[in-house]
Amino acid sequence: MLSRLYLRKDHRNLLESPPHLRKPPTLSPLFSDRSNIAHALELARTGFEDEGKGIPIGTCLVDNKTGKMLRVGWRRRVQLGSATKHGEIDLLENIDSLPARVYRKSTLYTTLSTCTMCTGACILYSIPRVVIGENDTFLGGEGILKQHDVEVVKLDMQDCKLLMKRFIEECTEVWWEDIGETGKGAAE
Amino acid sequence: MLSRLYLRKDHRNLLESPPHLRKPPTLSPLFSDRSNIAHALELARTGFEDEGKGIPIGTCLVDNKTGKMLRVGWRRRVQLGSATKHGEIDLLENIDSLPARVYRKSTLYTTLSTCTMCTGACILYSIPRVVIGENDTFLGGEGILKQHDVEVVKLDMQDCKLLMKRFIEECTEVWWEDIGETGKGAAE
Repeated sequence: MLSRLYLRKDHRNLLESPPHLRKPPTLSPLFSDRSNIAHALELARTGFEDEGKGIPIGTCLVDNKTGKMLRVGWRRRVQLGSATKHGEIDLLENIDSLPARVYRKSTLYTTLSTCTMCTGACILYSIPRVVIGENDTFLGGEGILKQHDVEVVKLDMQDCKLLMKRFIEECTEVWWEDIGETGKGAAE
Repeated sequence: MLSRLYLRKDHRNLLESPPHLRKPPTLSPLFSDRSNIAHALELARTGFEDEGKGIPIGTCLVDNKTGKMLRVGWRRRVQLGSATKHGEIDLLENIDSLPARVYRKSTLYTTLSTCTMCTGACILYSIPRVVIGENDTFLGGEGILKQHDVEVVKLDMQDCKLLMKRFIEECTEVWWEDIGETGKGAAE
């Protein structure tokens, strides 16, 4: 598990991930996919535990060739009062030093199935591979990703499910509102 | 045409649109669709002419029953250094006083065909109707919208095309980068 102190820094400083998270997916797909999702899960925990019960969904973008972590992000609806600052949008936000062509050679890791907005963002920027921690809690646009020839890998990770379960139990209304639903717990 | 002074204000102040833009779509669909797109086009012009050659794409969200303009937005990649601040994302950004259920009874107007990310955002928030100024310059996720039973209206408006043509001629590289392409003019 990553140091909590490390994770409390601004997320722009999190790009330099610890050495064990830098293994290229091409060398050992399963191990590096799981370790990259573990990093995303720590980002999710940061949002929930350190930033006042933010929605715990974390993402990171990794170069397919070098295994270098290019960008990280996490859902910050609660923290920033934003309906659109999902992990993937947070991650893609800044145009500073990363041109769009880099996305074409990367894998996006997300602890929870990508919603349709973030699915569309992956297609817009031609991200060729998406690895999903779990999709039991919420099933997003995986079908749309496949229609656009994006490789989708599902890891079915129990830790991702448990964190979401804890969040939904504690913050039911925030969750329903975030996914645009008017179900139980949502303001009618 | 709307007053330029009026349009230079922060866009949160633009929700109170002039009386002639408040006609409910149900009363006169064609006229109000065109006048709402005209409002979106003025927002696009604001971005391009008043804010340092921002990408000229404007959007607004209108209540289907009352015709009231609920939200406005425009693409602010250049202004904010953001790869994700498209008009639709700009418009949906703040969670302040507009719960997600309101989106289910509204029409989204955009001067240019919705990209896949914004298409996904419309589906996520169950916006049932999208009116597009033009899709000759760029064809986004209209097929995906239809797959999800969203009503799509295309107005084929010359003024929208001309503004985009002018922008692409003057800022070719910005445009290619914005749509994630590595075509002519984009950094290779």
